[in-house]
Amino acid sequence: MSGFVRRVPEGDSRERLICADCGHIAYENPKIVVGSVVVHGDAVLMCRRAIEPRRGFWTLPAGYLELGETLEEGAAREAWEEAEADIAIDGILAVFSISRIGQVQVIFRARFVDRASFAAGVESLEVALFEPEGIPWGELAFPSVRWALEAWRQIGGGPLGTPSGNPASDPRGERRGIASEPPP
Amino acid sequence: MSGFVRRVPEGDSRERLICADCGHIAYENPKIVVGSVVVHGDAVLMCRRAIEPRRGFWTLPAGYLELGETLEEGAAREAWEEAEADIAIDGILAVFSISRIGQVQVIFRARFVDRASFAAGVESLEVALFEPEGIPWGELAFPSVRWALEAWRQIGGGPLGTPSGNPASDPRGERRGIASEPPP
Repeated sequence: MSGFVRRVPEGDSRERLICADCGHIAYENPKIVVGSVVVHGDAVLMCRRAIEPRRGFWTLPAGYLELGETLEEGAAREAWEEAEADIAIDGILAVFSISRIGQVQVIFRARFVDRASFAAGVESLEVALFEPEGIPWGELAFPSVRWALEAWRQIGGGPLGTPSGNPASDPRGERRGIASEPPP
Repeated sequence: MSGFVRRVPEGDSRERLICADCGHIAYENPKIVVGSVVVHGDAVLMCRRAIEPRRGFWTLPAGYLELGETLEEGAAREAWEEAEADIAIDGILAVFSISRIGQVQVIFRARFVDRASFAAGVESLEVALFEPEGIPWGELAFPSVRWALEAWRQIGGGPLGTPSGNPASDPRGERRGIASEPPP
């Protein structure tokens, strides 16, 4: 990015990345991650990451929303790409702000459209269904995976209410570490 | 943007904007708009836009989430910038996908922290409280303003449940026009 400088564009109030050659402003906006807690009976679908960061750790099918997609379409695409799972969206389970890295996460509760069919996509080492007591709590990839799983454990298959948000222990999404013990 | 070309970066599956000189990839991601239905008694706070697009039309205090903010912080900042309103967030009222323009909108229900104090910020011509029957339904700036107001009218000051989403008439956020008649 040799051609980019940081300055405040005319009419703006914040520094932006601007190409010194052509004047293009590369706005750095927060990004939207969409994902799903895909539930089958009492079990949840999880993926072991084949890519960095956190290769080898467990996550939910989730990724960046792309231009032209609705939130639900993005979540369904990620479930297919990472877990070859054809899912039906139930509703919003949780909305998290991860301000440290400029992310907003919208996590849905979902189910399989037909039978519980899944396989490791190219970004996954393996994909599996876990009942709560079998979830690899000590090997979760990110704090928000834990938050989403805890949100699901609170409501199970019951009615979706107001979405869960960040936990009181990290209201702005600033902490790096994840607790490894199972939740109470 | 003379130096940018469109091609698929290595390891990616979609075309991106890439600077032909330095290789910088200008990812074009969906953007997050945060806003609020700020309620005072039976009335809602609205702003008449001083800027394009839709100058002179009515909207809710809302704007792009910035890096480093939580969703709630962004909504509170926008309420201050556009309406000089000091608000307390109640919870998520609605989440909309506007796929036509690559936007996700997270709309909160909020109230004034103290008394109902407000004034036109630099991006507003005027700011006012409207009871439902007084809302300028024929002069709304965007379809999603209408959707958010309708979501609020459905629940009023009652408990927030699952967030409202796009209406059945525009599930992907693709339509440009807004209906001008009051909702039934």
